[in-house]
Amino acid sequence: MRVTVLGLGSMGSALAGALLDKGVETTVWNRSAGRAAPLVARGAREAATPLEAVEAADVVIACVLDYDAVRGVLEPVTGSLEGRHLVNLTSGSPEQAREMDAWARSHGIGYLDGAIMTTPPGVGSQDMMFLYSGSEEVFQARREVLSVLGDPLHLGEDPGVASLYDAALLGLMWATMTGWLHGTAVVGADKVEATAYTPIALRWLGAVAHFITTYAAQVDEGRYPGDDATVDVQIAAIEHLIHAAHERGVDNSLPELLRSTMLRARAAGHGSDSYGSIIEVLRRPAGN
Amino acid sequence: MRVTVLGLGSMGSALAGALLDKGVETTVWNRSAGRAAPLVARGAREAATPLEAVEAADVVIACVLDYDAVRGVLEPVTGSLEGRHLVNLTSGSPEQAREMDAWARSHGIGYLDGAIMTTPPGVGSQDMMFLYSGSEEVFQARREVLSVLGDPLHLGEDPGVASLYDAALLGLMWATMTGWLHGTAVVGADKVEATAYTPIALRWLGAVAHFITTYAAQVDEGRYPGDDATVDVQIAAIEHLIHAAHERGVDNSLPELLRSTMLRARAAGHGSDSYGSIIEVLRRPAGN
Repeated sequence: MRVTVLGLGSMGSALAGALLDKGVETTVWNRSAGRAAPLVARGAREAATPLEAVEAADVVIACVLDYDAVRGVLEPVTGSLEGRHLVNLTSGSPEQAREMDAWARSHGIGYLDGAIMTTPPGVGSQDMMFLYSGSEEVFQARREVLSVLGDPLHLGEDPGVASLYDAALLGLMWATMTGWLHGTAVVGADKVEATAYTPIALRWLGAVAHFITTYAAQVDEGRYPGDDATVDVQIAAIEHLIHAAHERGVDNSLPELLRSTMLRARAAGHGSDSYGSIIEVLRRPAGN
Repeated sequence: MRVTVLGLGSMGSALAGALLDKGVETTVWNRSAGRAAPLVARGAREAATPLEAVEAADVVIACVLDYDAVRGVLEPVTGSLEGRHLVNLTSGSPEQAREMDAWARSHGIGYLDGAIMTTPPGVGSQDMMFLYSGSEEVFQARREVLSVLGDPLHLGEDPGVASLYDAALLGLMWATMTGWLHGTAVVGADKVEATAYTPIALRWLGAVAHFITTYAAQVDEGRYPGDDATVDVQIAAIEHLIHAAHERGVDNSLPELLRSTMLRARAAGHGSDSYGSIIEVLRRPAGN
């Protein structure tokens, strides 16, 4: 199998590097010159044009700035892409992924849309998830080579789903990292080092994962029994955090937003329900 | 060793139950009647008064509504507490814990302040953390019986530290659970079930834990090299989430707050630093 990687930013370069490490015949192309040299030194072939890049491969992996850039590179070589497989790992919206899938189908190009759930240094590790959606047939046909990049998961035929998961998962990451940093700032004010607090925070995150698993089933059922801890209990408890952070001069925007979200849930009748019931207020914008 | 549990709410009852399960001689007391019966049926002795409860034990565990309630119960029996150990698992602030410790010391009472990092059903499991701070001597002397309740961790002699960790860790929990619920609402709008999305979200949380470990060391060093992903990259990426959530009628308060925090970090010169640099803006309230 011959693979082409279009786009040699730090992520595209990591993808090509992982393929080369596993001995995959790899062609690379980048809009601006000078990015290919380290990969050529590791055995990659550099294509001079997108046409040459596409013609060199069975599978074309695109990892460029955005979907407009993908279209800009591939529109002129649509004819050569016919019958090949296009795996688009460029970041974008579900709507863009669906449009790109429709475009690819109309030109006889097998299409998979994907999202890379790691940073460049994590590429090539089986611990790291690569999310795909779109053609199950293309996924099965290319699963082996996709496994070289990370652990490939196919989320369904709707090509927009991988992008949607990507956005949702990054939102979880930012929320988690900001919550962790806030707590780190709070304990840090009392001279606790981040590297002392963090192992305990990460162990606690394991317990939180259990609560989340419980609440996931509740969300699907639309019932949120507050057997373990209620929204009312959380509202009482968050006052301690807001007070402690305020006393230490730490920004309280995040806990205050969390409290107001809990108060909205209580106002909607979820005071004695579990925290899972918070999804009911998130499903409609504030003020509605 | 004889243990008394003061307060038989759902958490206090779980504590007494775990002690009884391990054959510990346990006395219980609750302000209002009727809560002790199930524990008495399991072998507990019910004390009629706080004095009787305190005199029956080497270690008194308090788990009541708040610190005022602890003082209200114990002030009249201070003399009987002298020479015994008091383990206060009531939720409160670091300042309250420090005051209680000073009060206990002044009366010759060995004092430990604690925080229970689980819900009542998790009490008794070694997977669950019980955080303690205050007298190391009391902690070492009572470690064995405290191990019956969960995995006991001593965080230091400053009695306020367990409460401070508790607040910080709960903040991490609320942020993480709200971020997860937001993403669940976003993917749910496209008919993805919570129980389908959540296992992938939890696996992703494992990757996030690795980022956090990296950033913890950066926080202690005060340097945030953006080798893996920069604040600027995150600012670009969060637009996808905000757009996708908006299109689906999902509340965007949380991602909008996260974006504004990232923008504050960029404005403070951290655009090409890692996400760890966000702590620099959290350390001072917005507008300062």
